[in-house]
Amino acid sequence: MTRQDSMINQPTLLLNSEKARHNIKRMAEKARLNNLAFRPHFKTHQSATIGEWFREEGVKAITVSSVSMAAYFVNHGWDDITIAFPVNLREMDGINELAQHIKINLLVESPETARQMQKILKAELDVFIEIDTGSRRSGIVYNDIDRIAQIIEQLHESSLTHLTGFLTHSGHTYQAGSHEEILQIHRESLTQMRKLKARFAAEQPLISIGDTPSCSLADDFSGADEMRPGNFVFYDLMQAYIGSCSPEDIAVAVACPVVAKYPQRYELVIYGGAIHLSKDSLGTRNGGLSFGRAALLNESGWEILPEGNEVVSVSQEHGVVKLQAEFFNKFSVGDLIAVIPVHSCLTAHQLRRYQTLEGDIIQMMD
Amino acid sequence: MTRQDSMINQPTLLLNSEKARHNIKRMAEKARLNNLAFRPHFKTHQSATIGEWFREEGVKAITVSSVSMAAYFVNHGWDDITIAFPVNLREMDGINELAQHIKINLLVESPETARQMQKILKAELDVFIEIDTGSRRSGIVYNDIDRIAQIIEQLHESSLTHLTGFLTHSGHTYQAGSHEEILQIHRESLTQMRKLKARFAAEQPLISIGDTPSCSLADDFSGADEMRPGNFVFYDLMQAYIGSCSPEDIAVAVACPVVAKYPQRYELVIYGGAIHLSKDSLGTRNGGLSFGRAALLNESGWEILPEGNEVVSVSQEHGVVKLQAEFFNKFSVGDLIAVIPVHSCLTAHQLRRYQTLEGDIIQMMD
Repeated sequence: MTRQDSMINQPTLLLNSEKARHNIKRMAEKARLNNLAFRPHFKTHQSATIGEWFREEGVKAITVSSVSMAAYFVNHGWDDITIAFPVNLREMDGINELAQHIKINLLVESPETARQMQKILKAELDVFIEIDTGSRRSGIVYNDIDRIAQIIEQLHESSLTHLTGFLTHSGHTYQAGSHEEILQIHRESLTQMRKLKARFAAEQPLISIGDTPSCSLADDFSGADEMRPGNFVFYDLMQAYIGSCSPEDIAVAVACPVVAKYPQRYELVIYGGAIHLSKDSLGTRNGGLSFGRAALLNESGWEILPEGNEVVSVSQEHGVVKLQAEFFNKFSVGDLIAVIPVHSCLTAHQLRRYQTLEGDIIQMMD
Repeated sequence: MTRQDSMINQPTLLLNSEKARHNIKRMAEKARLNNLAFRPHFKTHQSATIGEWFREEGVKAITVSSVSMAAYFVNHGWDDITIAFPVNLREMDGINELAQHIKINLLVESPETARQMQKILKAELDVFIEIDTGSRRSGIVYNDIDRIAQIIEQLHESSLTHLTGFLTHSGHTYQAGSHEEILQIHRESLTQMRKLKARFAAEQPLISIGDTPSCSLADDFSGADEMRPGNFVFYDLMQAYIGSCSPEDIAVAVACPVVAKYPQRYELVIYGGAIHLSKDSLGTRNGGLSFGRAALLNESGWEILPEGNEVVSVSQEHGVVKLQAEFFNKFSVGDLIAVIPVHSCLTAHQLRRYQTLEGDIIQMMD
């Protein structure tokens, strides 16, 4: 690390902007190569400044996860936004406001919701039908053809709602145990989406797919028209663990003050807990849980330590880091240690701003 | 619930202020009855307004978990504050600033840290030695008498540092399986602290204990001088589960819009995920995980549903709620459902403000 070290006194989200820009460029190229529209998910970084790095790679349309996040990015010049969350009927005022000014795509997954929405809609907008290809979170199961047809019929009932296509997020790739398992899920998901595309060909539906593991690893996207990955801008320990990226691709780490040292148990206590890292965890190969991997700060950023050097527990502000002896001895109380987050989206959300390796502060939305 | 229902369109932290005030009053009375100073932990609520409810019960001294939280409460008139976190040497500027104006108690748990701190200290302050009575987070193990003696000796080296006593947080009560197990941990912890008090009697040390489960359930605090519970102001599902409170004592719930409904699996998808509820979870009796218990909003607040009606998964903004058939049928897309948080401290931290049942908004620190 750099001269900025001396100014860090609380848990601080470090950003290697070169790596993040490289991750963006690589994914943008992959989308181009595969003839896919690239509509990255901005919920990971939530920052207008980082948004501009995407614009430099030709990105014109984006994905967000809430109406308020859409409003923030509209204020920063984005005018083609998919809110990738089942439409929240209680926020139709905000949606109407947005739809009057920019191109908004919403997600709908039931005819009843489509009908309710149409009743209070005041401007034209585009609608994706959300398809569940196996994650069992939101969306209609892909083979529930009758219900999908009912939604389409309902959308045609109003001149304000236009069907754009079918959208899925194969979030079950996050639970995959291997590279091959991710590709398997991706292939199955894509097969399901292609069937829908064929079945409803008269509607000329676009197919939008989303998850970072598939978008990172797959080479075949045939049938898809658009990709919406988000996490890839930073990646994280989870993505490295399941094989979506190499550890060197990870663009964020949390610098945390060491506040106590316990030689008998080779553990440090750090200022860096659940409210900084989040409580997302990863099962390690030895059967334990990791809330983040330890890393050493150095001149060029950080050096990730081997597996077995982990944040083993977090409470509100405390983190407990278990280290191998050779690394344990490198730290004193008052030093900084870096933690590679398990899930960069949640960690960034917690910390609300970035400090680049050059010492610049990048803000996120309020 | 009330007329305010119609104004809730995003995940909103509801506060039953009557229950919170009752919880405060009951704990204040318990402290008085047991001749304990009552120094509640304010990290749970982080709110100047709620702080005033404690002042009305005679509270004059408080506990916080960070230097910035101390500064916030100093700005709201509090002048006797324990920062219950191992002293962060990188924040000595802030600590010096506080110590020049109010009474600050810090936690130290090594002679080296005490020495480092003394080098940069500019005002007098009081120090607790943090004792680990079994939680294995921070603190010196109680029977490491030599090291404790070294710290005391080190504290006497400077006219700025005064030993106040020994402080422990028996956080392992949170992992207890029963009422009896909590009391067992409490008794062991107190026995350890009494031994220290006797061993270092010449120093006239105060004994400060902390965790909400022990403070809620125990009747015997002999040897202790002060209690510092925090979570009890709201309690939560975890505390009800381990028996520290009854479900009726829980003073917070998160109102979440229902955005999708899946009759085949009796699941709702709600706008309310990890960034609202936190990812803290609880093992349920059927072997699953709960990220919160479902509740029905009603005229007087909420009615907690039986076990088995749980938030079974959360991602960044989505929550999946599994309900029993009779309750599932009560909800439509567009309705609100309430979620009783697993861990109220983290949920409050996520949501940053409260809405009382009367519709008033109560802010937290920035």
